[in-house]
Amino acid sequence: MTTDADLEQILTAAAAVPLTGPSAPAPGQRADWLDAVAAALDAAADELVPLAQSESHLPTARLNGELKRTTFQARLFATALREGTVIPAQIDPPVADWGSGPRPDLRRTVVPLGPVLVFAASNFPFAFSVFGGDTVSALAAGCPVVVKAHPGHPELSRRTAALVSQALADAGAPAGVFALIEDVEPSLSALRDSRIKAVGFTGSTAGGRALHDIALSREEPIPFYGELGSVNPVVVTAEGWSQRSAEITSGWLESLLLGSGQFCTNPGLVFVPDAQAFLADLELPAPGTMLNPALEKGFQKSVEVMAGLPGVEQVQAGPANPEGVTAKVFRSTLAEVAASPQALEEEMFGPAGLVVEYGDQAELLNVLQTLPGQLTGTVQGTSEGTEAADLVAVLSARTGRVLYNQWPTGVSVTAAQQHGGPYPATTSPLTTSVGLAAIERFQRPVAFQGLPEALLPAELRTAGPDAG
Amino acid sequence: MTTDADLEQILTAAAAVPLTGPSAPAPGQRADWLDAVAAALDAAADELVPLAQSESHLPTARLNGELKRTTFQARLFATALREGTVIPAQIDPPVADWGSGPRPDLRRTVVPLGPVLVFAASNFPFAFSVFGGDTVSALAAGCPVVVKAHPGHPELSRRTAALVSQALADAGAPAGVFALIEDVEPSLSALRDSRIKAVGFTGSTAGGRALHDIALSREEPIPFYGELGSVNPVVVTAEGWSQRSAEITSGWLESLLLGSGQFCTNPGLVFVPDAQAFLADLELPAPGTMLNPALEKGFQKSVEVMAGLPGVEQVQAGPANPEGVTAKVFRSTLAEVAASPQALEEEMFGPAGLVVEYGDQAELLNVLQTLPGQLTGTVQGTSEGTEAADLVAVLSARTGRVLYNQWPTGVSVTAAQQHGGPYPATTSPLTTSVGLAAIERFQRPVAFQGLPEALLPAELRTAGPDAG
Repeated sequence: MTTDADLEQILTAAAAVPLTGPSAPAPGQRADWLDAVAAALDAAADELVPLAQSESHLPTARLNGELKRTTFQARLFATALREGTVIPAQIDPPVADWGSGPRPDLRRTVVPLGPVLVFAASNFPFAFSVFGGDTVSALAAGCPVVVKAHPGHPELSRRTAALVSQALADAGAPAGVFALIEDVEPSLSALRDSRIKAVGFTGSTAGGRALHDIALSREEPIPFYGELGSVNPVVVTAEGWSQRSAEITSGWLESLLLGSGQFCTNPGLVFVPDAQAFLADLELPAPGTMLNPALEKGFQKSVEVMAGLPGVEQVQAGPANPEGVTAKVFRSTLAEVAASPQALEEEMFGPAGLVVEYGDQAELLNVLQTLPGQLTGTVQGTSEGTEAADLVAVLSARTGRVLYNQWPTGVSVTAAQQHGGPYPATTSPLTTSVGLAAIERFQRPVAFQGLPEALLPAELRTAGPDAG
Repeated sequence: MTTDADLEQILTAAAAVPLTGPSAPAPGQRADWLDAVAAALDAAADELVPLAQSESHLPTARLNGELKRTTFQARLFATALREGTVIPAQIDPPVADWGSGPRPDLRRTVVPLGPVLVFAASNFPFAFSVFGGDTVSALAAGCPVVVKAHPGHPELSRRTAALVSQALADAGAPAGVFALIEDVEPSLSALRDSRIKAVGFTGSTAGGRALHDIALSREEPIPFYGELGSVNPVVVTAEGWSQRSAEITSGWLESLLLGSGQFCTNPGLVFVPDAQAFLADLELPAPGTMLNPALEKGFQKSVEVMAGLPGVEQVQAGPANPEGVTAKVFRSTLAEVAASPQALEEEMFGPAGLVVEYGDQAELLNVLQTLPGQLTGTVQGTSEGTEAADLVAVLSARTGRVLYNQWPTGVSVTAAQQHGGPYPATTSPLTTSVGLAAIERFQRPVAFQGLPEALLPAELRTAGPDAG
């Protein structure tokens, strides 16, 4: 439990970290911090992974991979900071006749926004939690971070936070650059506090929207980067089905059931030209244990809602796992879901999917256009793709990532990644929460006009950042 | 007056403009549109400038320059679109062992957000109005634009809009890519309409905040890019005053009174080491006619508020202009304004400024740190600047543009420009409303994973955008 006094001390320390000027942590120093934390977490893997397993019920192999991905992510930002690729310096020298007048010496770089509040997620206890993508990208940007622990893995959160704090202190980071808080009330107090300047969130649409509304109605509204809900539509083309049917059904099943379906990019909605053929060979296994009772309850509720929708029929249920949870597949048609669009919007966060049979591709395109914003959209087509141009166009208008003959679960941490899409996939569709561009969420541009060389930030000096 | 039926037709047409895929307007086409409109407006200068003069009371020379700047801005975006510099394509080829697993083929580009609602400003009837920076950058991004005319120059707005529409049609742009609406109620209906996907606004803090709150509380919240209030602090260092006093007072007066003080970057607040010396040589002229009665009334009101604040004294008033408006200078001290910070926040949008005398630079830095977010911050110092490092650091934490020995009025349209700062300077401090980066406000990233070459947007093809 974080007391009011704890929170006040945490926010005071966070606000005291300098953001600009010679005393602010330089990109190279921030890189060193990230590397130090990555090393500390890797070194503690034998302690952290069993702790994560006991609290999240996720398989050990998955957790080992996720921890590796988490520290890889931190090192990737460290490298990018040292190479300067995430610091978009722009130098425009003076021009005597520039359009309607002379252009002054103008140079633009970025400064950190200030202390960031991160709401950890439960489904990735490493990669989207205490030292997950939001924390790492905010620290990389030079912002102090206050993480609200997810109650789904409290001990892991505390232990991770202790390791992060120790590694940062050992690497010379100022006190205040990182802190963990627990419980809802202190997190809401932090959200309303004028010292917090941005928010990262991954979770449900209802919860995220409520926090978004608080952030944007403050006296000083602040950016709220929320990743909310997505059903991640998949379209199987008739031509693709003819060419690759076995690969498509097995690939869908594997992606749908990965992590017991508890992935934000879970492909829960698939449009197929022939539902009977698509369903014929599906064989549902017993799912893994779900992350926690709250998620399991939410999943069962959404499955009940789906089962009760007009024109939706439950066509398959697999064997139950020890907790009594079964994977399920529902079936409908394009005409039915067009008339009753709730079926297209109901996110079942767990091992369940809806198969919708379509006839005419033009009608399918119309329905896809009406979908809420999505993180991903996938086309399963022929290897050449000649039949899929219109599908790719409409999916790129409604999603943040379009896949072709691949599956959306698994989000690579790289420069070209985009994990975010039109609302409600994310509250801020111009940004990504995974990949190097995630740092942009926590940096603000500042232009410098006519400054003597010595007063410029290092990356804007004519002699270059490494000049002595 | 825009009727409900007009608005419905306008929004339907805007929403019908394709945003993605082969039928969406390509960057080169959008460049052609912008050039066509620029040519049409330049050709109509002899008609537009007198119309603008009659409605805005601004001097003809200023309006000629502003129109030139407006068409220059459009051509600058056209060039950037053709060169691809505003389309941030990122291609990450597959890597077999990328951190915790293989990296797929991932390529990232941007797509337009969708129809944009622009609220025109009154103080720049060309550059921030019907075909101003918001309209041009949104069109450049591929977004249809609906402009709400400012009532300060209705005839100019209608005539400009007619020329824009005709030039766009002649250049082959789809119907729906541009429209003008008038009056508050239709603009609020548009703001609430789900077909509008982003908003550009320049105006008062109160008005902008009200519109912001509507945009962010919609069922689908949308980005609201509002430029609200800024007093644009200037700090004169003791060393700078010794070296450059005459240049500083004359420069401040010129910048303060430019456009009758009706510039968003007007330097209305200046901190000086010796107020008596600073004020000794100031000689206020009669100001020009103000833009409209509403602005004049708002200015007089804020001047009265300022005069009534504790510790603030009116020390100079110039001769009255024909409408009875006089330029005014107020004076206070750092101790007084620290105790009564309203003096530091009251934007007098017109020919008036507040001179604050400071003693200790450390105390000044503390006060600067508490300032609301600003568009600009200026240091007037020595030519070497050795005394100004801390001032530059604190100003870059509270503003979007830091100037040294220059003045903030005049905002160059270039890649390195940043016109935007922490709230309330702007509602969205990660973006700029002037300069090439303004286009980023209206584009959303989309990643493509594993797509056959033929299905990729042109700029993401391995063979390059110009391959046949």
